[in-house]
Amino acid sequence: MMAEETAVAPSTFALDGWVRARLDQVERALERWISADALQDSGHAAPVALVDAMRYSVLDGGKRLRPLLVLAAYEAVDGGAQRACEAALRAACSVELIHAYSLVHDDMPCMDNDVLRRGKPTVHVQFGEASALLAGDALQALAFELLTPSGDAVDGAVQARLCGLLARAAGCSGMAGGQAIDLASVGHQLSESELREMHQLKTGALLQGSVVMGATCAHPSPQALAALKDYGAAIGLAFQVVDDILDVTADSATLGKTAGKDADNDKPTYVSLMGLDRSKAYAQDLLAQAQQALLHSGLADTRALAALADMVVNRAH
Amino acid sequence: MMAEETAVAPSTFALDGWVRARLDQVERALERWISADALQDSGHAAPVALVDAMRYSVLDGGKRLRPLLVLAAYEAVDGGAQRACEAALRAACSVELIHAYSLVHDDMPCMDNDVLRRGKPTVHVQFGEASALLAGDALQALAFELLTPSGDAVDGAVQARLCGLLARAAGCSGMAGGQAIDLASVGHQLSESELREMHQLKTGALLQGSVVMGATCAHPSPQALAALKDYGAAIGLAFQVVDDILDVTADSATLGKTAGKDADNDKPTYVSLMGLDRSKAYAQDLLAQAQQALLHSGLADTRALAALADMVVNRAH
Repeated sequence: MMAEETAVAPSTFALDGWVRARLDQVERALERWISADALQDSGHAAPVALVDAMRYSVLDGGKRLRPLLVLAAYEAVDGGAQRACEAALRAACSVELIHAYSLVHDDMPCMDNDVLRRGKPTVHVQFGEASALLAGDALQALAFELLTPSGDAVDGAVQARLCGLLARAAGCSGMAGGQAIDLASVGHQLSESELREMHQLKTGALLQGSVVMGATCAHPSPQALAALKDYGAAIGLAFQVVDDILDVTADSATLGKTAGKDADNDKPTYVSLMGLDRSKAYAQDLLAQAQQALLHSGLADTRALAALADMVVNRAH
Repeated sequence: MMAEETAVAPSTFALDGWVRARLDQVERALERWISADALQDSGHAAPVALVDAMRYSVLDGGKRLRPLLVLAAYEAVDGGAQRACEAALRAACSVELIHAYSLVHDDMPCMDNDVLRRGKPTVHVQFGEASALLAGDALQALAFELLTPSGDAVDGAVQARLCGLLARAAGCSGMAGGQAIDLASVGHQLSESELREMHQLKTGALLQGSVVMGATCAHPSPQALAALKDYGAAIGLAFQVVDDILDVTADSATLGKTAGKDADNDKPTYVSLMGLDRSKAYAQDLLAQAQQALLHSGLADTRALAALADMVVNRAH
């Protein structure tokens, strides 16, 4: 760890190359772990049809923001890692599985009833509703399975902490709780603080959880952990603000999903609440908060985290 | 641990009193842990509407067979416990949450479309489909949250092992996998071995998992663990055979759910495959296998496990 003033500005960091190398590792791990060969327990194989739906929903799609946050936080705390350790790679894949399952269930007819996701038919359109329901359920379980390998590749205490963090980020005081508030809010006018609370749970909890899980794999100092939590909270919120902005400014082809959907569904968004210009300014404020938190982390090299924050806020889709 | 010949016959064991004391502990724990007060993370409270649906699906209903198996296995291995330790109580509640979530999702219109469960309207009838979907999702996450308390009440390595066992029992090579086979099998003729494989996953994995998780809380010998796995496999299968029998022999009021449903839905069952009499004989065979396994466990007192096996096979609903 080095003093604050030595932190390097994100602009000098080649995010593309960093991302490419990590994505390569993550994609290969997901491909390997979500397969009928890998998914056996006590001689019972997972049914191929279920594994197909799980693979469809996870592989070959998505920006993998959450895994990248896990790995960036891990590397920042570790201070020397060029590759993810086993725990961090498993954590990276586990948060992506939770994200993927939430999309599968969220797209279902009883929720958002969306037919297009990442430019492909959604899982229930492709495989039927019952299979989508089960695939989502199985993906959530698989996330915890990935975090708990047998053998000694990952310390038991770390496994337990990762499971605890993931469960809380995904559950009723995290992602699922945020979805429930979202559901109840359709057609209602929310205050800015209510909207923020909803998004802190719905999107923020898992994004922040990703950062904290990655850090946990490298045994962070209390100072670093606190700063990374602040960083995670800021980008978690920023992500949703930008999502709301893109929902009205981008087209479906760019987004890979149906644009204008939230407004059509009379869902409260930052844009509907504070207008487009104030929403954009708020996103930039949150980016500044995230960068500030990194400066207070006491960590020597937070360039990947800084660049990811920038990417979250200034993305076009 | 004592030699085999000292094992006491189940008939001398007062199961009712044993069950009552354990249920009291489990019910109070569930009541305490599934509440808006308990379900907070980093200052974020779970939304009341979601917690209501979760409580509705878990509290005040069900035989709690899985928690009882956890506690009976724990006590058998521990050899002296009169009360569940913190880990065993959490494990007991976690398997019930997984069971409850599976019922909520299984009852949904895109799956079994059932409107009655434990004599009450199913969750989607009471709260709407979207809320049922989310409540199920949140219950699964909460199961892992219960297994990973902060502080030192439960050893980290035990937390990790319990999470791993639960994830595998619930996931695609366990319960969710069995559901997927079930789904694909409607209207198809299954062989006896295919039907067995389906039920070993769908119902057996979590029942067996309950036994193994309970044992794990008390650090079993390899001999005891292997025997308890065999016991769990036998009662897991027996449970489903009896379920199929009751589906054709009991009425809806006794079952607390719609009777004759599987036959109406053209689902393969043991009764449709082997007839009623052979199904009943098979259930008794499996009971004998379970009791035999206990005799080979090397454990001194397996009376509660033996009595629970008897209850599973000879139940009327």
